Amino acid sequence: MRTFKLTIAYDGTALAGWQVQSGRRTVQEVLETALAKITGQQVRVTASGRTDAGVHARGQVVSFRAESRLAPEVLRRALNATLPRDVVVLEAVEAPDGFDANRHAIRKRYRYVIHDGPARDVFARHYCWQYPFRLDAAAMDRAAQVLLGRHDFAGFQTQGSPRVSTVRTVFHISVRRGEGAQSDLVIVEVEADGFLYNMVRAIVGTLVEVGRAARSEFWVAEVLRAKDRRVAGRTAPPQGLFLMRVEYVDRAGEGRGAGG
Amino acid sequence: MRTFKLTIAYDGTALAGWQVQSGRRTVQEVLETALAKITGQQVRVTASGRTDAGVHARGQVVSFRAESRLAPEVLRRALNATLPRDVVVLEAVEAPDGFDANRHAIRKRYRYVIHDGPARDVFARHYCWQYPFRLDAAAMDRAAQVLLGRHDFAGFQTQGSPRVSTVRTVFHISVRRGEGAQSDLVIVEVEADGFLYNMVRAIVGTLVEVGRAARSEFWVAEVLRAKDRRVAGRTAPPQGLFLMRVEYVDRAGEGRGAGG
Repeated sequence: MRTFKLTIAYDGTALAGWQVQSGRRTVQEVLETALAKITGQQVRVTASGRTDAGVHARGQVVSFRAESRLAPEVLRRALNATLPRDVVVLEAVEAPDGFDANRHAIRKRYRYVIHDGPARDVFARHYCWQYPFRLDAAAMDRAAQVLLGRHDFAGFQTQGSPRVSTVRTVFHISVRRGEGAQSDLVIVEVEADGFLYNMVRAIVGTLVEVGRAARSEFWVAEVLRAKDRRVAGRTAPPQGLFLMRVEYVDRAGEGRGAGG
Repeated sequence: MRTFKLTIAYDGTALAGWQVQSGRRTVQEVLETALAKITGQQVRVTASGRTDAGVHARGQVVSFRAESRLAPEVLRRALNATLPRDVVVLEAVEAPDGFDANRHAIRKRYRYVIHDGPARDVFARHYCWQYPFRLDAAAMDRAAQVLLGRHDFAGFQTQGSPRVSTVRTVFHISVRRGEGAQSDLVIVEVEADGFLYNMVRAIVGTLVEVGRAARSEFWVAEVLRAKDRRVAGRTAPPQGLFLMRVEYVDRAGEGRGAGG
């Protein structure tokens, strides 16, 4: 048995998220179907984490074990010739035995894209939150910095998602307006050692309240302290969210970053 | 009766082109349906030109006459609240009586986008031609310049499209590779006083033969001289094509450019 690590991208628009669900088209299901065709085996794939229906990935990482003599690059090409048009393997490498894309992830980066232009962008409608008011990206960026560092993010997770701990460390958070042709986009980037369920979407829904001046910049600190999901803003819709990259401990045969 | 001029954008992916066809979802049909709801009248709209199924527009221009007291900006908002998510009105103005978006157009610009990266871009699959070989954009650009100016483009139109004349004047043609995050894109821009049926797609299909070094840069001149569609390259697929803008003679109450 060999262990493989794949970096994949997918357009979540027509996918019911990552995890196999009976009768629904999911990333896990299309990937396992393609691997079965290529290897002749029932292969079980593990992602760095689940993504919800409509959420996209530019650098999701997946691990699996299979009896195969295919070189990783040959496997990558075979998968891309077999997979549907909305899922693609960007990179395939052989990983050390025991590598697990979920348990060994140490850092993840998400991007959230908001479009706040005067007219809808028909080409971006599946890839952003079309927001009806102009946002103050600089105020959102200042307000967001209170989330940097190690905190209990209990106020930013969707209820009914049991976790041992709701403490996470945010290494980077920024909100900026795009330039040139992207000046109607507000881009939120968050990097952390892990994320609670719907955490990025709850953070974005909260920052947007500041961006449209319904709340002050200092309100985000109150939400963080309250540790109560009902205090925070609404959960931003899924189609603006992209899993950008997942990082792993540097080990033999394995780079540090993946995707980007 | 008042005459209106709309600048519209549409994602052609789920549209069967511009023109009304029984039982198919077209831009003309969704626009006329929305106008009927808003004005209570059966309004007939005219575009600067038809676009085929799968072809997109960032600056298509449409004219129509209606009995309406709505200010153009109010009409624009009402249309955008009524139209489906893949069609949007960017601008609405009142035009001089008799303005016809088709007959009065003097210049149009199209863009064609080719993706030639090593892995498919799952997010761009409806908005480019995913080409399996790396292209030499500089060679394509040099080869394209022979098309600049006034020529008989009979070799670059799809047969069965009767036109009084196949002579057109190309004011601008360029092929360039994108920069930074767009370095896997080859972007062709063509501006002319008019286009024959499938002319841009035939030009792109021809330039791609040069870009992958199957033909020399001088072959494009031969295709132009031959005036025979069978000599040129294949017709590039529709999803890479965008109508960018349409220009009109400067007249009272009407700007020169539209869209962009």
